Amino acid sequence: MTSDLIGSGPAPIDPSRWLLLHRSVRFGETDAAGVMHFHQLLRWCHEAYEESLEAFGISAAAIFPTPSWTPETRDKGDPSQAKVALPIAHCRADFLAPLVCGDLLAIALGPRRLTSGSFEVSYSFACLEGASRPVAWGLTRHVAIDPISRRRCDLPGVIERWLEASTNGDSPPSNPG
Amino acid sequence: MTSDLIGSGPAPIDPSRWLLLHRSVRFGETDAAGVMHFHQLLRWCHEAYEESLEAFGISAAAIFPTPSWTPETRDKGDPSQAKVALPIAHCRADFLAPLVCGDLLAIALGPRRLTSGSFEVSYSFACLEGASRPVAWGLTRHVAIDPISRRRCDLPGVIERWLEASTNGDSPPSNPG
Amino acid sequence: MTSDLIGSGPAPIDPSRWLLLHRSVRFGETDAAGVMHFHQLLRWCHEAYEESLEAFGISAAAIFPTPSWTPETRDKGDPSQAKVALPIAHCRADFLAPLVCGDLLAIALGPRRLTSGSFEVSYSFACLEGASRPVAWGLTRHVAIDPISRRRCDLPGVIERWLEASTNGDSPPSNPG
Amino acid sequence: MTSDLIGSGPAPIDPSRWLLLHRSVRFGETDAAGVMHFHQLLRWCHEAYEESLEAFGISAAAIFPTPSWTPETRDKGDPSQAKVALPIAHCRADFLAPLVCGDLLAIALGPRRLTSGSFEVSYSFACLEGASRPVAWGLTRHVAIDPISRRRCDLPGVIERWLEASTNGDSPPSNPG
Repeated sequence: MTSDLIGSGPAPIDPSRWLLLHRSVRFGETDAAGVMHFHQLLRWCHEAYEESLEAFGISAAAIFPTPSWTPETRDKGDPSQAKVALPIAHCRADFLAPLVCGDLLAIALGPRRLTSGSFEVSYSFACLEGASRPVAWGLTRHVAIDPISRRRCDLPGVIERWLEASTNGDSPPSNPG
Repeated sequence: MTSDLIGSGPAPIDPSRWLLLHRSVRFGETDAAGVMHFHQLLRWCHEAYEESLEAFGISAAAIFPTPSWTPETRDKGDPSQAKVALPIAHCRADFLAPLVCGDLLAIALGPRRLTSGSFEVSYSFACLEGASRPVAWGLTRHVAIDPISRRRCDLPGVIERWLEASTNGDSPPSNPG
Repeated sequence: MTSDLIGSGPAPIDPSRWLLLHRSVRFGETDAAGVMHFHQLLRWCHEAYEESLEAFGISAAAIFPTPSWTPETRDKGDPSQAKVALPIAHCRADFLAPLVCGDLLAIALGPRRLTSGSFEVSYSFACLEGASRPVAWGLTRHVAIDPISRRRCDLPGVIERWLEASTNGDSPPSNPG
Repeated sequence: MTSDLIGSGPAPIDPSRWLLLHRSVRFGETDAAGVMHFHQLLRWCHEAYEESLEAFGISAAAIFPTPSWTPETRDKGDPSQAKVALPIAHCRADFLAPLVCGDLLAIALGPRRLTSGSFEVSYSFACLEGASRPVAWGLTRHVAIDPISRRRCDLPGVIERWLEASTNGDSPPSNPG
C-alpha cells in the first residue's frame, strides 16, 4: 500500500494489526496422542475473529449478545433485541502437521464478503518454531439473521467496514464501532 | 426405603434413577500426559447436574435460559425475564487417580439445600474398569439470583423438590416440572 | 429381525446399535446467543465416533494412545509405540438450525473407507423435539499414520472391520477387538 | 527500574512480567445466561500457569509431555520417560461477579511451594472494564509424580526456581530452562 492510494487522508493503519494474530498451543488443548486435538482449531478460529474485530476497533458488545442487565444493553432500550445475529452456517478445517504443547502460532485472517447478508473468514495457521511453516487452515461462514423475525437480513455496518478494510487493505475509520 | 414410609401413595422411584449416572472418558478430554485433563471434570459435574434434573422430570427449559424466539419462551410472555438464575458461586474438585481414554465412570450425585436461596451438589466419581474405585470428587455451589433485580432470591420450587427428594430418598412427584 | 432372516449363522446385530447414537445439548455448550456454540458440534462428532467403535466392540485402548504405565500398554511391550495413529486431516460442518439447551439429538453415523490408509465419517444430526428434523451435518476424515516413521500406513484391521460392517450393514464379528 | 537499584548484579526483571497476565472473555466461553460459563475459569487458570512459566523463561517442552517423535524428545534419549509429571490433585474457584463477552481481565498469579514435592498457584481475576474490580479467584494444587514408578517425587529444579522467584520477587536466572 502506498500513500498515493489514500491521498491526504489519515495515515493508514497496518492491516497486520487486525489480520495477523498469534497464540500458543496450551497443554489442555492436546490429547493423549500428544498433539493438538482437532476441534480446538475451530475454537481458535472464532477467537481470532473476535480478536480481529476488537483490534479493528469494534467492541464485542457491538456484535455479540449481552445480558439484558448489562449497562450497554440496559441503557439502549434493549439493543439485544435489535442486534443482528451472525451465526456460523458452515465451517471446515484442514490439518497439515501435528502441533505440540508450547508451539507458537501465527494466524493470518482473510475476511471476505459473500453477499449483502453473509461473509466468510479464512484462517491460515503457521507454526513459528524453527522456520515458519503452514500447519493448518480453517474457514467459518457467517449469515446475518434478524433476531426478531429470525429471517436473513443485511450485515451490520461495522462488519461491512471491517470486511472492506480487510479486503482493500484500507485503514479502519477512526471510530468504526 | 420401604413402602411403609410412603403409605398408600404411588410406588417410589429408585433415586438411583437421577442420582447415579454414567459416562466414558473421551479422547478429546485427555491431554498429552495421556490422562483426563483436570478441568473436564467440572464440565462433567455440571452435565451430571443437568442430566439429574432431566431424569427427575424437570425440563432444561424450566431451569436454563432459552432465547426469546423459542416457543417455550415466546408463548409465556417472556419467562426468560422471570426465570431465576442459578449461577455457581463456588466449585472445587479433588483428583485421586488418573483417568485414561475409554474409562467408564459412575457419578454419584449428592444434592443438598444450604439456605432458602442456595444449594450445593457433590459428585463422587468411581472408575468401573476392574474393581470399582473412587477416582475423583467434585462440588458445585449455586445461588438463586433474580434476573431483573440481580439480587439473591429464593430457589425455584422445582429445585426445592429435587433437593428434598434427593435428600430423603423420596420419589419425584408425578409432575415436578 | 428374526433368525429366520439369516439362516443358521449367528444372529446379526442391528447396525443402529453402533451407527445411531443420542445426546442432549448441555448448558455449557450454548453461548450468549442462547444456542449451541458451533465448534461443540465437532467435539460431538468425535465423541460419536468413539462411542460407535465402543458399541461395535472395539475398546478405546485398541485405537487410542494410552500412557506407558497403564496395564494394557505395560503388559504388551509398549504397544503405544506400535499403535497406528488416526489423526483427522480434514473436518467440516453445516449448521441448519439453532439448537437450545436440553434439545435431544439423534446422530446417524456414515463411516466410509476412502483408501487403504484413510476413511471418513459423516454425522447427520436430527433434533427429536417435536417432529424429528435435520439440524446439522458434520464430517471427519482420518488418515493412518505409523507412530514410529510418522509416514502414512494401512488402516488397523479393527477399523477395516468397523468400516465394512457399517457400509454393508453386516453384523460385527463376535470379537472385533 | 535502573541498575542503580541493584548494584552490580544482573538487572532484575519485573515479576509482573510473569505473574500478571491478561486475557479477554470470548463468545464461546459464555453460556445462554449471557455470562462466562464457570468451568472456563479453571481452563484460564492452567493457561495462565503455562504462560507464566513461558514468560519466566521455562519452555513448555521442559515441563509438559511431548510425543516421542518430537526433536526435543527424540534427541535426548526419551526424556518423556524421565520428565516429572505435575498433575493437579485439587482445584477450586470462587465466582464474585458475572463476566460478559469482551470483558478484559487481569490475572494475578500467586505461586507457592507447599512441600518438596508439591506446590499451589492462586489466581486472582480482576475485570478492567471501568474501575478494576475483583471478579473471581481460582487455585490449582500440583504434586510431582515420577513417570516411571508413578510415585511422588521432588519438584523439578526449574519449578523450584520459578516458585522461589515468584515468592521473593527475585529475578529469574538468565537461563532457568
